Amino acid sequence: MAGSQPVRIGIVGATSYTAREAFRLLLNHPQAQVVAACSRRDPQPRVDEVFPEFTGRVNLQCEPIDADALRGRIDVAFLCLPNGLAMTLAPRLLELGIRVIDFSADYRLKEPADYAAWYDKTHTDLDNLAQAVYGLPEFYRERIRTARLIANPGCYPTSAALAILPFLKAGLIEPTDIIVDSASGISGAGAEPRPEHHFPERHETFEAYNVGKHRHMVEIERTLDPYVRGSKTSVIFTPHLVPMERGILSTVYLKPTQPISVEHAMQVLLETYENEPFVRVRERLPRTSEVARTNCCDLAVRVVKSRIVVLSAIDNMVKGASGQAIQNMNVMFGIDEKAGLR
Amino acid sequence: MAGSQPVRIGIVGATSYTAREAFRLLLNHPQAQVVAACSRRDPQPRVDEVFPEFTGRVNLQCEPIDADALRGRIDVAFLCLPNGLAMTLAPRLLELGIRVIDFSADYRLKEPADYAAWYDKTHTDLDNLAQAVYGLPEFYRERIRTARLIANPGCYPTSAALAILPFLKAGLIEPTDIIVDSASGISGAGAEPRPEHHFPERHETFEAYNVGKHRHMVEIERTLDPYVRGSKTSVIFTPHLVPMERGILSTVYLKPTQPISVEHAMQVLLETYENEPFVRVRERLPRTSEVARTNCCDLAVRVVKSRIVVLSAIDNMVKGASGQAIQNMNVMFGIDEKAGLR
Amino acid sequence: MAGSQPVRIGIVGATSYTAREAFRLLLNHPQAQVVAACSRRDPQPRVDEVFPEFTGRVNLQCEPIDADALRGRIDVAFLCLPNGLAMTLAPRLLELGIRVIDFSADYRLKEPADYAAWYDKTHTDLDNLAQAVYGLPEFYRERIRTARLIANPGCYPTSAALAILPFLKAGLIEPTDIIVDSASGISGAGAEPRPEHHFPERHETFEAYNVGKHRHMVEIERTLDPYVRGSKTSVIFTPHLVPMERGILSTVYLKPTQPISVEHAMQVLLETYENEPFVRVRERLPRTSEVARTNCCDLAVRVVKSRIVVLSAIDNMVKGASGQAIQNMNVMFGIDEKAGLR
Amino acid sequence: MAGSQPVRIGIVGATSYTAREAFRLLLNHPQAQVVAACSRRDPQPRVDEVFPEFTGRVNLQCEPIDADALRGRIDVAFLCLPNGLAMTLAPRLLELGIRVIDFSADYRLKEPADYAAWYDKTHTDLDNLAQAVYGLPEFYRERIRTARLIANPGCYPTSAALAILPFLKAGLIEPTDIIVDSASGISGAGAEPRPEHHFPERHETFEAYNVGKHRHMVEIERTLDPYVRGSKTSVIFTPHLVPMERGILSTVYLKPTQPISVEHAMQVLLETYENEPFVRVRERLPRTSEVARTNCCDLAVRVVKSRIVVLSAIDNMVKGASGQAIQNMNVMFGIDEKAGLR
Repeated sequence: MAGSQPVRIGIVGATSYTAREAFRLLLNHPQAQVVAACSRRDPQPRVDEVFPEFTGRVNLQCEPIDADALRGRIDVAFLCLPNGLAMTLAPRLLELGIRVIDFSADYRLKEPADYAAWYDKTHTDLDNLAQAVYGLPEFYRERIRTARLIANPGCYPTSAALAILPFLKAGLIEPTDIIVDSASGISGAGAEPRPEHHFPERHETFEAYNVGKHRHMVEIERTLDPYVRGSKTSVIFTPHLVPMERGILSTVYLKPTQPISVEHAMQVLLETYENEPFVRVRERLPRTSEVARTNCCDLAVRVVKSRIVVLSAIDNMVKGASGQAIQNMNVMFGIDEKAGLR
Repeated sequence: MAGSQPVRIGIVGATSYTAREAFRLLLNHPQAQVVAACSRRDPQPRVDEVFPEFTGRVNLQCEPIDADALRGRIDVAFLCLPNGLAMTLAPRLLELGIRVIDFSADYRLKEPADYAAWYDKTHTDLDNLAQAVYGLPEFYRERIRTARLIANPGCYPTSAALAILPFLKAGLIEPTDIIVDSASGISGAGAEPRPEHHFPERHETFEAYNVGKHRHMVEIERTLDPYVRGSKTSVIFTPHLVPMERGILSTVYLKPTQPISVEHAMQVLLETYENEPFVRVRERLPRTSEVARTNCCDLAVRVVKSRIVVLSAIDNMVKGASGQAIQNMNVMFGIDEKAGLR
Repeated sequence: MAGSQPVRIGIVGATSYTAREAFRLLLNHPQAQVVAACSRRDPQPRVDEVFPEFTGRVNLQCEPIDADALRGRIDVAFLCLPNGLAMTLAPRLLELGIRVIDFSADYRLKEPADYAAWYDKTHTDLDNLAQAVYGLPEFYRERIRTARLIANPGCYPTSAALAILPFLKAGLIEPTDIIVDSASGISGAGAEPRPEHHFPERHETFEAYNVGKHRHMVEIERTLDPYVRGSKTSVIFTPHLVPMERGILSTVYLKPTQPISVEHAMQVLLETYENEPFVRVRERLPRTSEVARTNCCDLAVRVVKSRIVVLSAIDNMVKGASGQAIQNMNVMFGIDEKAGLR
Repeated sequence: MAGSQPVRIGIVGATSYTAREAFRLLLNHPQAQVVAACSRRDPQPRVDEVFPEFTGRVNLQCEPIDADALRGRIDVAFLCLPNGLAMTLAPRLLELGIRVIDFSADYRLKEPADYAAWYDKTHTDLDNLAQAVYGLPEFYRERIRTARLIANPGCYPTSAALAILPFLKAGLIEPTDIIVDSASGISGAGAEPRPEHHFPERHETFEAYNVGKHRHMVEIERTLDPYVRGSKTSVIFTPHLVPMERGILSTVYLKPTQPISVEHAMQVLLETYENEPFVRVRERLPRTSEVARTNCCDLAVRVVKSRIVVLSAIDNMVKGASGQAIQNMNVMFGIDEKAGLR
């Protein structure tokens, strides 16, 4: 892209936390620029009214969500919308030649039946669903390069998949005996105030939620499935809430098909991620603060009795959302993959 | 009260944070018992549905707010209601012979004009307003003993008045050059979720609010006024929000009428509170955590250049609300003043 | 104990967090009183110098740790000492007729070889080790009644054992496929400042630690073992650190020996704890804030695919330490088991 | 600097929090690069061992602090050292032609007597002290351009001076009746663990400290003094500690020499900072989270009774330390002042 124009980005759903994080990260992107912000609010606010930290730094007035109004003005749309809305907007954007990175779950599950079962909606854009690429660059980089529609992965699935796939691909673990025990900061719940996230309720407490029922459980399985021959994976997923703003740590319990040493397990991770710019395999156990505001995923592994235990830390708002979207955009537009994400 | 029946309490507005704190404190009160809980919800919840920590510990079904339905069942009502509602309920309760401790501001300001100006409402119960006693036992204990209606003080005014009154009473400070700079935990904002108290917004931030406009500014002044001859006090009050659940620290700047030593200032505090069970005058600077979940007010004093600086810490939910209400109740009913508050 | 003298308690290791919590809880105990506080500090502080919140509430000067100096003055000693020290002190206290509740791990593992392997010390008091009773009243109440030496359980093992034992006793789960994934507030690390618990490092982060190496892993197994015929249990235990002061949530994954419904699983818990004053079995998922500062253990259960998932919440400082010690004391001295713990 | 080599920076005292923040900010600086890191540790660590978040991002091995070893390798040294050490190192660095930005207090107070009185040390580098420029670009930009030695301002003084100087310069306020009431996040206390900053002690508490004795009180006065004719200023300064990582909010009480409207006060701020890239004057009250990780200072003003109340928020680690250092460096080296600080 040397010498070329910067990529022009439209952020749709500009008042969400993932939009906020995208604005923040893109302030430092040398080859991309947010040129449009769309929201469902009426009246439309300025971005720095919604997020006052951007006063004097982001100079954008929100506009209504209207694909045609974006024609010719943007190269790529970041869809930061609730599940179910993206699939009503993406088709027209794609027709207009605008590439789409969708932050919702709409294009993540290839089987419409899964979507219907877990999201309680009928999928209405099957054509694009078939074409969408799951935006996990560590495993789908080549397909991302030419993709026009990216299903940006969920936060928990990103942390889980990066921990599990190396072992699953290598055939070292039982695909149906996987436990993912995760904990997330509260930004993952979004910008909408809710009684259970009122500060005095959320501060100084820890809890599990949606045990066995979280939608990311099926997303993790479907992300793993292609790497198992002749069968499906089975994952037990338990998310927890940590009284902090951001970060996810997943503690993943895997059953090796035969005894494995911790050195071997470490080697599997090191080899898988040898050339990856954002995955750091380390001896030291990860902490979410060490990946906060970065696009890094930190991994460590232990063998405890009959299990491989993989620890995986990301920032749910960066590698788990907006950072990964930018990474995907960089790959799609042939920009240095680390641009804006150093 | 030896040998007598426990005081029967009705908590009206049972789903508020101050109600919750009263339920918690009264679990340990040897001579009082909550026997009724009233709320405006429909359908009426059990107390342990609203506050699940009370499961198996508080066995009460909420009932509608109806003074007559409480006749003969309770000795005292704790009114944990929004400003403006208490004055519609208290008159009938008093008629029924039920004593009232009002947590709202309805009976705190003796001048109806003040109430109208600051609370934007016309006071509708002037008779009882005239009889109400401001429930600051350290200064009004004798009147509280025989009171039938207590205006339980505001949280900030409690912390400020206990810091200022000793010096004002002694004529040692300028009454019109008082600055109260306070900081409070978020429980002070109540149980209702608000965007600015959504955990990711409130965590890791500090700010002032309602600068020069907070209603407690006038309450502080009116609490001080009776101790100045021939004039009114003037207080500048700035509240701040601390990302913690509970606690208030007030840093109070007083202008001595003539130079004063720190030893003298300390002596004034020590003498004022010599026999007070809940005010601790100490050399050491106070911290809100040292008064958390207690009815204590910790005070320290310094002299800095031309000012006396008094530091005053309370738990806003205890000495600043429900604990002080219980203290008032103990005084009213001739119980050991520390009962339930050890 | 009606009409009798209060139980006289000596707290040894009076500057620890568990001592602090015992002092706090015992302020409200109607039939017990702390009459001695012993520490290793020189010079010896007052308790309220170390913990200023007790100013005016706990009036005790610390004294050196000397069993003979306590003769005749106390009925029971709470040993809040590091591992390895309790076993040097308990023998003499017991000889003097003082009952002992030991907060350390010294008397928890019946096999000296386990102690040597996990605590890197040779056990020096095998006689009393053989007599010590593991202080989990829900399972050992009868033995506690007559015990002279209580091994007060570890915090994580308490939360885990209460979740697992009902199913293990009933023969419903595989004893060698148990995963305990726990998260604790930072008070569990004790009062000694450490770089990793410096506020700016600990705030806003989440991490696992001692994966597969935490000493509570063997304590959990040894607590479960007696309930399995002919074999030993095998537990994988992963502790995590939550940026909060107190609380433990354990998420426990159990493998049923045959398919089980969630209703059946729930029934097992309900029946086991039907008459227990401090275990609350609920449909609702537990949160640590709902047990904070109480001696309660909140349990919920789900069945997810091939596993029973039990959620177990306690306050690590109360049911996980000082509250359980008081519960044990109450049982030992024939006091109402809930005294001081309401 | 177009086309020229990047500025080469040496960070001395590389294991401090201000060093950490400088490393973080400089990752994104397009025209400057950290090429040396010096520490007093033995053995010398890698930067990413001390701060693991920099794994794969900062590739530097620490080296001993030795001015001569830096000759020719760096253009500017950031001295992130305790007070008293900088003045032993700066002279040689300056002799070697290395410019110096000192984060300590060593070159902030022009009067050696002030330094002796407040820092309890005799100043040993009076020549350079006389030449040093106080690095507050909003007021000393021209002198910074040609400075060889910058005294980087303290965090509290930065927040206070930016709030007060506009009014003082305009002669609108009494110079001897100024109250600065500030609150800071805990990173301001540095990286060294201390008992009072142990997580369980610091979480959920608020307190004042060093009331009337903090060294920044004199720094604020000396920063204001040059703007008053014929007299000195007198400031009462009270710092507080907020349970958050970063951020300072100062609430400043100024006495107008004659009545002033809030519109006039606002106008004074707006005009002063009209062209400043990092000072944002707003109607809305500032919050520390809105300046977190930015070099911005947010200001708002109110008039309350007889006082002007100015609210001033900065990130203590950025505008209050490392960001301001980079801003100073940018000015000194003729780089875009916002480089690395967007």
